[in-house]
Amino acid sequence: MPVLIVGSIALDTVKTPAEEHADLLGGSASYASVAASFFTSAQLVGIVGSDFPQAHVDYFQSRQIDLEGLQKVAGESFRWSGEYMTDMNVRETRSVALNVFEHFTPHLPESYRQTPFVLLANIAPALQSHVLDQMARPRFVVVDTMDLWITIAKPDLLALLARVDLLILNDSEAKLLTDETNLIRAAEAIRGYGPQYVAIKKGEHGCLLFGDPAKQEFFSCPAFPLANLHDPTGAGDCFAGGLIGQLAREDTPEITFEQLKRAVVSGSVVASFNVEAFSLERLRTLEPKEVEDRYLEFGRISRF
Amino acid sequence: MPVLIVGSIALDTVKTPAEEHADLLGGSASYASVAASFFTSAQLVGIVGSDFPQAHVDYFQSRQIDLEGLQKVAGESFRWSGEYMTDMNVRETRSVALNVFEHFTPHLPESYRQTPFVLLANIAPALQSHVLDQMARPRFVVVDTMDLWITIAKPDLLALLARVDLLILNDSEAKLLTDETNLIRAAEAIRGYGPQYVAIKKGEHGCLLFGDPAKQEFFSCPAFPLANLHDPTGAGDCFAGGLIGQLAREDTPEITFEQLKRAVVSGSVVASFNVEAFSLERLRTLEPKEVEDRYLEFGRISRF
Repeated sequence: MPVLIVGSIALDTVKTPAEEHADLLGGSASYASVAASFFTSAQLVGIVGSDFPQAHVDYFQSRQIDLEGLQKVAGESFRWSGEYMTDMNVRETRSVALNVFEHFTPHLPESYRQTPFVLLANIAPALQSHVLDQMARPRFVVVDTMDLWITIAKPDLLALLARVDLLILNDSEAKLLTDETNLIRAAEAIRGYGPQYVAIKKGEHGCLLFGDPAKQEFFSCPAFPLANLHDPTGAGDCFAGGLIGQLAREDTPEITFEQLKRAVVSGSVVASFNVEAFSLERLRTLEPKEVEDRYLEFGRISRF
Repeated sequence: MPVLIVGSIALDTVKTPAEEHADLLGGSASYASVAASFFTSAQLVGIVGSDFPQAHVDYFQSRQIDLEGLQKVAGESFRWSGEYMTDMNVRETRSVALNVFEHFTPHLPESYRQTPFVLLANIAPALQSHVLDQMARPRFVVVDTMDLWITIAKPDLLALLARVDLLILNDSEAKLLTDETNLIRAAEAIRGYGPQYVAIKKGEHGCLLFGDPAKQEFFSCPAFPLANLHDPTGAGDCFAGGLIGQLAREDTPEITFEQLKRAVVSGSVVASFNVEAFSLERLRTLEPKEVEDRYLEFGRISRF
């Protein structure tokens, strides 16, 4: 089954203590749709300017990503620039130019409106809701968000959460959204807002998946041990894309917690590869066999 | 097989946002030996003053802990007082009175010197080395330490590390000891100092166990999900005690990485119970069946 993915498409400039690169392919929907493409076919909804390199479009197509929902308009593409400190967990945004993204209204082609699996990658929650408004009843909706929207658009975010199945966010965002310092209590509070499932990402500490506590639905996914992170940009988007891609690949009428566990591991696998090089470079050479092998590795490092 | 445990024995005053209690049984060796007693018999080496309550001695004895190595001298017992903030991961030491502990020299009874499993719980590294000096060739030596010793007694600590099999420390201590920001590289650096194995505790994020990378010896142990922490004091000591206790219970001529994984989980199990109440209160009522059940739970929450 295909997955529909909406989010940002950007040209990034990224600086780490070791390197700096400009005009990299970036944005939440770019990372997520390429990540998903290792598991199923993706339908990409986003916007780019007239400066957007054809090479990036060609790359999406080489990954079998459907671009009917990609709007190309006059003007400059969304640009983001960020810098990572010696501790690669600390990032500073150096500049943001929304450009054509400022007036983006996601419009779904007719052929996307019945797609059963939906990832609302990280963009403003009002836009994420607008996508759902255009869809028939999807089977499973995953939403990713960030601290910015919790701070400036919390009512929009809460309205959206009542309509989704799984919320992905990181640990500090979970605490910010719920005013809880304990992640177990934070996840319970979030489930009270609507989503049946919550995935809390903890960077180098892995990820926690929460479902119904009465059914003991709890999963702790390890982080893959990496001695060198080259560029953490897009790790969260790859996680979300790999997760929804794996769900769509299994394509069952009902989504079980066991399936969601496998999906969380699949997302973690793609994210762990993505941080091994700048931008999407590592994913360009990634082979299905490597994805399968690392999935097994995730099992090996947590089994006892 | 018995385990020998040396460390501090204290009377603690602990304040959390919810409660405050004084004259609690505390100290690294107290927690560790009670934790180990759920798996095997412990031999306790430490010092207390004439004010040390007989009830605490009785409790050690009720746990079958051998007290031939417990020195009782004139003067006051070691006292520690600390306060936890709303985020229970943040602790402030309010006062420390070393008292009789200031001139403690661990002296091993003849009957302890052949003990095959040794835990050097958290005390000054020179004292930890002094214990090893008195021993025949032990089969497996585990050492726990803290940021204080890394800062004020690093040469002593490095001299000790050349003689031990497993070092336990937390993530910030691993970074402090090695000047590495990445835990995989930090663990490799520590293995270079001597210990074949390194366990890096990450509090609410679980624990990582490192062995030989060439043999893919890496294990990520999850944290048990707890919605309420009542008192984190002694969690690290319980982890160390449960770990060495489990190794001694299995009592094999060679210690394998698979055994160490089970030992890390066993330590995590006891620590997860201990934080559910003040001081050692939870361990006083803990049943072997509860320990076994939670061990299985640790498997369930990380399996996919």
